[in-house]
Amino acid sequence: MRRIIVQKFGGTSVADTEKIKNVAKTVIKEKNNGNDVVVVVSAMGHTTDYLVKMAKDISKLPSGREMDMLLSTGEGVSIALLAMAIQAEGYDAVSFNAMQVGILTENIHTKARIIKIETEKLKKNLNEGKIIVVAGFQGVTEAGEITTLGRGGSDTSAVALAAALNAERCDIYTDVEGVYTTDPRVVKNASRLSEISYEEMLELAHAGANVLHPRSVETAKLNHVPLRVRSSFKTDDLGTLILGVEKMEIDRPVTGVAADLSQTRIVVCDVPDIPGQAANIFTKLAKDNISVDMIIQSYARKVSNTNDIAFTVDSADTDKTVATLNSLKDTLKCGEIQVDREIAKVSIVGAGMIDRPGIASAMFDVLARLQVNIKMISTSEIKISCLVNKEDAEKAVKALHEEFGLSCDIVADVKGDLPNV
Amino acid sequence: MRRIIVQKFGGTSVADTEKIKNVAKTVIKEKNNGNDVVVVVSAMGHTTDYLVKMAKDISKLPSGREMDMLLSTGEGVSIALLAMAIQAEGYDAVSFNAMQVGILTENIHTKARIIKIETEKLKKNLNEGKIIVVAGFQGVTEAGEITTLGRGGSDTSAVALAAALNAERCDIYTDVEGVYTTDPRVVKNASRLSEISYEEMLELAHAGANVLHPRSVETAKLNHVPLRVRSSFKTDDLGTLILGVEKMEIDRPVTGVAADLSQTRIVVCDVPDIPGQAANIFTKLAKDNISVDMIIQSYARKVSNTNDIAFTVDSADTDKTVATLNSLKDTLKCGEIQVDREIAKVSIVGAGMIDRPGIASAMFDVLARLQVNIKMISTSEIKISCLVNKEDAEKAVKALHEEFGLSCDIVADVKGDLPNV
Repeated sequence: MRRIIVQKFGGTSVADTEKIKNVAKTVIKEKNNGNDVVVVVSAMGHTTDYLVKMAKDISKLPSGREMDMLLSTGEGVSIALLAMAIQAEGYDAVSFNAMQVGILTENIHTKARIIKIETEKLKKNLNEGKIIVVAGFQGVTEAGEITTLGRGGSDTSAVALAAALNAERCDIYTDVEGVYTTDPRVVKNASRLSEISYEEMLELAHAGANVLHPRSVETAKLNHVPLRVRSSFKTDDLGTLILGVEKMEIDRPVTGVAADLSQTRIVVCDVPDIPGQAANIFTKLAKDNISVDMIIQSYARKVSNTNDIAFTVDSADTDKTVATLNSLKDTLKCGEIQVDREIAKVSIVGAGMIDRPGIASAMFDVLARLQVNIKMISTSEIKISCLVNKEDAEKAVKALHEEFGLSCDIVADVKGDLPNV
Repeated sequence: MRRIIVQKFGGTSVADTEKIKNVAKTVIKEKNNGNDVVVVVSAMGHTTDYLVKMAKDISKLPSGREMDMLLSTGEGVSIALLAMAIQAEGYDAVSFNAMQVGILTENIHTKARIIKIETEKLKKNLNEGKIIVVAGFQGVTEAGEITTLGRGGSDTSAVALAAALNAERCDIYTDVEGVYTTDPRVVKNASRLSEISYEEMLELAHAGANVLHPRSVETAKLNHVPLRVRSSFKTDDLGTLILGVEKMEIDRPVTGVAADLSQTRIVVCDVPDIPGQAANIFTKLAKDNISVDMIIQSYARKVSNTNDIAFTVDSADTDKTVATLNSLKDTLKCGEIQVDREIAKVSIVGAGMIDRPGIASAMFDVLARLQVNIKMISTSEIKISCLVNKEDAEKAVKALHEEFGLSCDIVADVKGDLPNV
């Protein structure tokens, strides 16, 4: 049986007709390797922004259903053009939107989750030797309503298709050359990883390395789909393979270092030390759809019998969080609410740290040597994060990267922004 | 039972977000009249041209299937934006593409014909009080392939929907104010007709008045759908109603005058007068997909026993026609092939001429008085066409318009081009 490779190209890779022709060549190369190929594409370049702008011109609060109808046209354009470009090279190709494939989702607009993908039509067309081009980011409900998958949608479409088709691999082509030990714009001699586990990738993503949206990594992990992040421009390069930790040789305690500058620390001071106070706060925040990351509760002070509850939220949610906390002040009988936007979360991630003691203390040592004050600490099995002052983040990342032996001799060739997912 | 009105707005009527908001107001006005409303829209302004240009950049001969996938996205944008604009005014609206409605067509790309329209979903949504916005120009095959309807497609979608829903009327909103007795850009005091029969409209369309594509008029005639052509900009104005001749009071012999400047006359000289010669010519032309309009065969000359066969074709087909005729020269044993591009077909159209003798002679009289030479004549029950020199067309139209009492006192307010259909 022939192997199926799913390839995904984002909006910047199909931004104009010349780029689409290049993508066609990359697709054909994989076909010529003897594989069956299913290609998932996003909307061209800034199409989605343009469509959103028109919607906002017309309505302050356009309905989710009609937004999905509107946005799904973006991939409709790119799939047809890519199929034409493949045909122009003399290969058989056919494009399908989500409705035609049967990418079934929940009946939720603008952020639906995929429930099931019909594979019969896809397999039939692959068996006829065709290259299949599928619209990413979109789905359809049982009732025939068009949905979109929200952030990270096209990557998720590709991974879900790879899972449904039992594909050999899912290749995510993007404008970076793979996953690095840290942001190569910050640390010039960051190393590109040839392999990384799903778990490490997830922790790195949550720690601020946005090569892939965590959702697509989770889908890949759940379905055991090997995922490759590789460059749209250097297609001979194999990039980084993301796979199950059980398949990896782990020869290093730390895989990557990341800094997340997008969080704000909130401290609710002098909360009386009686049961249910933390539940009060975080239940209400969850109800208001505010995601909380790190949480620290201090030991109760003996004199006042109060403690401080500190946590971080996405900076965009700061005002909303403060409003929510103010509405709780009478219930909590707490003191001041402090807001600190000048913070950064610096994390080291590595599946190898599980069996190796002393990694956390090595991290704290490095920060101490740099005279970097640690404001909060949180740990998972494969990640240690420290909250520090924003101005200390860069030197902390550089020193940690060096300390854990991640630097290489080659200066990374990084162009432009990290990819949008 | 509530009456259903189908409205259709072309690309120029939805060319930008401001215009879409205006269309929403027109739609709501009809809803507030107590009617159920189904709106059919084309792609915004020059979207289709833009999409075609990208396709041509990628492929010299893009496949019909992928062209249809590509072009159908144009209406996907306009339907969603119009639904949002209606919702922004506080009315319930929902957009559907052809696949969602079930506008079933033949399995032919770029020029499919509608076979059937599913009405269940439409009726359910109308009963829920919703205004429905449907993508024009597109359809879907039984197998789920996306098709487009070709020229005049959106008008045809609207008329076919009106027929399937047993609608009270189909209103075609456009950038002219209705159907005129002749082109108001040529004759300033052309009258707008309040009514015209399907048959007259068809003859006028074929005679060069391109307010509506003949295909949509034929569909309306076949299904007895009253059709109104009215202005997108002066929505209080009722425009022109097109309906069955049996429902009309016919009080005039001639309804309209038109000139078609897009034809070329071809004369095959000295064709030996033996049976089968005309069949040879016109069968071959039909095979080569060349449409022939007027045909005249002269009486055989007594001396040479040959005659001349003259006909007109669309000027765009001239070279193809000459090539076809040259390939037949040995078979026909004919003489020279003459080509005359400097001609115009001037026609008078009117259901009222059926019972009134003397209309043809009145037309010839007018042309004779103007010293306009008639090169060919053809007649149908409700139309008389004369082929004249191109330079004589304008004065002929003006004189005929005056002679048959079609002028009015009001100078027509005509903006820009006649609508594209």
